[in-house]
Amino acid sequence: MENIAEEVLKGNRFALSKAITAIENEYDNATEIMQKLYPHTGHAYVLGVTGPPGAGKSTLTDKLAKEYRKRGKTVGIIAIDPTSPFSGGAILGDRIRMNELTLDPGVFIRSMGTRGSLGGLSHKTADAVKAMDAFGVDVIFVETVGVGQSEVDIVKAADTTMVVLIPGMGDDIQAIKAGILEIGDIFTINKADHDGADKLATELNMMLDLDGETKDWRPPILKAIANQNIGIKEVVDTFHKHHDHIEGNGQLTVRRTERAKNEMLDLLDARIGAYVRHNIVDNGKLDEYVQDIKARKTDPYTVVNSVLQDMLK
Amino acid sequence: MENIAEEVLKGNRFALSKAITAIENEYDNATEIMQKLYPHTGHAYVLGVTGPPGAGKSTLTDKLAKEYRKRGKTVGIIAIDPTSPFSGGAILGDRIRMNELTLDPGVFIRSMGTRGSLGGLSHKTADAVKAMDAFGVDVIFVETVGVGQSEVDIVKAADTTMVVLIPGMGDDIQAIKAGILEIGDIFTINKADHDGADKLATELNMMLDLDGETKDWRPPILKAIANQNIGIKEVVDTFHKHHDHIEGNGQLTVRRTERAKNEMLDLLDARIGAYVRHNIVDNGKLDEYVQDIKARKTDPYTVVNSVLQDMLK
Repeated sequence: MENIAEEVLKGNRFALSKAITAIENEYDNATEIMQKLYPHTGHAYVLGVTGPPGAGKSTLTDKLAKEYRKRGKTVGIIAIDPTSPFSGGAILGDRIRMNELTLDPGVFIRSMGTRGSLGGLSHKTADAVKAMDAFGVDVIFVETVGVGQSEVDIVKAADTTMVVLIPGMGDDIQAIKAGILEIGDIFTINKADHDGADKLATELNMMLDLDGETKDWRPPILKAIANQNIGIKEVVDTFHKHHDHIEGNGQLTVRRTERAKNEMLDLLDARIGAYVRHNIVDNGKLDEYVQDIKARKTDPYTVVNSVLQDMLK
Repeated sequence: MENIAEEVLKGNRFALSKAITAIENEYDNATEIMQKLYPHTGHAYVLGVTGPPGAGKSTLTDKLAKEYRKRGKTVGIIAIDPTSPFSGGAILGDRIRMNELTLDPGVFIRSMGTRGSLGGLSHKTADAVKAMDAFGVDVIFVETVGVGQSEVDIVKAADTTMVVLIPGMGDDIQAIKAGILEIGDIFTINKADHDGADKLATELNMMLDLDGETKDWRPPILKAIANQNIGIKEVVDTFHKHHDHIEGNGQLTVRRTERAKNEMLDLLDARIGAYVRHNIVDNGKLDEYVQDIKARKTDPYTVVNSVLQDMLK
């Protein structure tokens, strides 16, 4: 296919798929594609979905996508796949793909792996979001397992972030909850028919109360049973409510400006990473440095300082 | 304290604490401290402990540390704290600190937060490992919640990596398991008295069998009930077995060379990130670029290309 970007803009699904593959694998044509798509972005609303493993995020996202379809919106889903940092497998993605949504031409689903490359994922996700946006979907879900860095990344990427929790998880969840308080615009307790759902809601409410800062948006705590289709409409209604809220008070513009900044820095990081690999790794210099470091003839800090002097203006 | 590095080398715990704080917060003296400590590193054995939230990693690590103490070894523990990427809180760390281990002068415990800074955590963890190594502990545990990137980081940092699992977790665990197969030198099923422990062991065994590649180390699958002190000695014995194995076949040297490479690249990334912030962010240039990008006068890819031309030799 010669003109991938043009085909994406015409609504060609196969071209969109090729564009995201080019982004994911850092093909030579990826930058050119993105340069052409970029002027056509900025229309889609981006929803982040995060939460601990086992919270049923994929099922919930699928049901929410169906609800948006009923309301006449087209949907993109990007599932950030934490399964295989090394081999780049996409088990989570494959599982999602194998459902009825894939037959709907108004839904485009894509999984992206965390391949453990030098800081590439967040800028790749951002580019995939832009490609879907330019393709013309109305709503884009970015779904990821929420632990540590991936939480930060999803907040960077989304207009509205939903944290999905379930009752009765282990000790660490307690700890994780403290971190996600800060990133959730909406909290949804999935599997709300399980024991402990009310307790979890009470705990979350207390933690939000303790959060101090007076905010003009108090994150609502919703309940859902995704696999029984319960609570789905309410979540979508709440997305709308949050959208209207942040559009009204100017926060949406602020968030998107922040996002543009972060994306530019991420992209810069990725490009510099590629430059470093080219100038230090591929030509074998790194191996020489490491031998000297391992022999304690020098140390990594001294070497890095001299490399930087050689590399930067 | 004037000579933090010298004090660390004398075995001053307070100095070690200050050194790691300097690393974590990127104080100006951090590099100088590390340059002085580096020649005294390379003696400690580094054990990575990872696994999903709720697997009981902290409890297990504490018991393993006690077992090492019984065997006459001094121990360092670095708990990578995924709780609060934004505020930098250390809930997990605080929990760990408040136990009897903290009274033992042969144990040094430190938590480090994932503060969502530009790629700083893995090089900071590596530096903290080196500081503890130079301080003189025999064994260092690096403990993290294993989802996505943090798994990769722990493999980079450790000589031997143990994956901790528990029976009966949710759907995503199934998916995560596929990723961790590749990183575990040892698998420990904690809470092995819970339903499903045998099933999990069988599944893991099958997955390891399917893994294809003939390896000369077949990752053993151990069972433990950490809070009842069951299975702890066996885990430590297996750490020793793996150590002897990779020392014998040269893999330990290979791993440490790889580690030195990765650490140098991480450090380089972090330094370049700081340079970028200084040259683009702090002087307001980024804001100007972003305004033009948001107005669609240009696009991030074109801007980044021109920034790189200005910055790199």
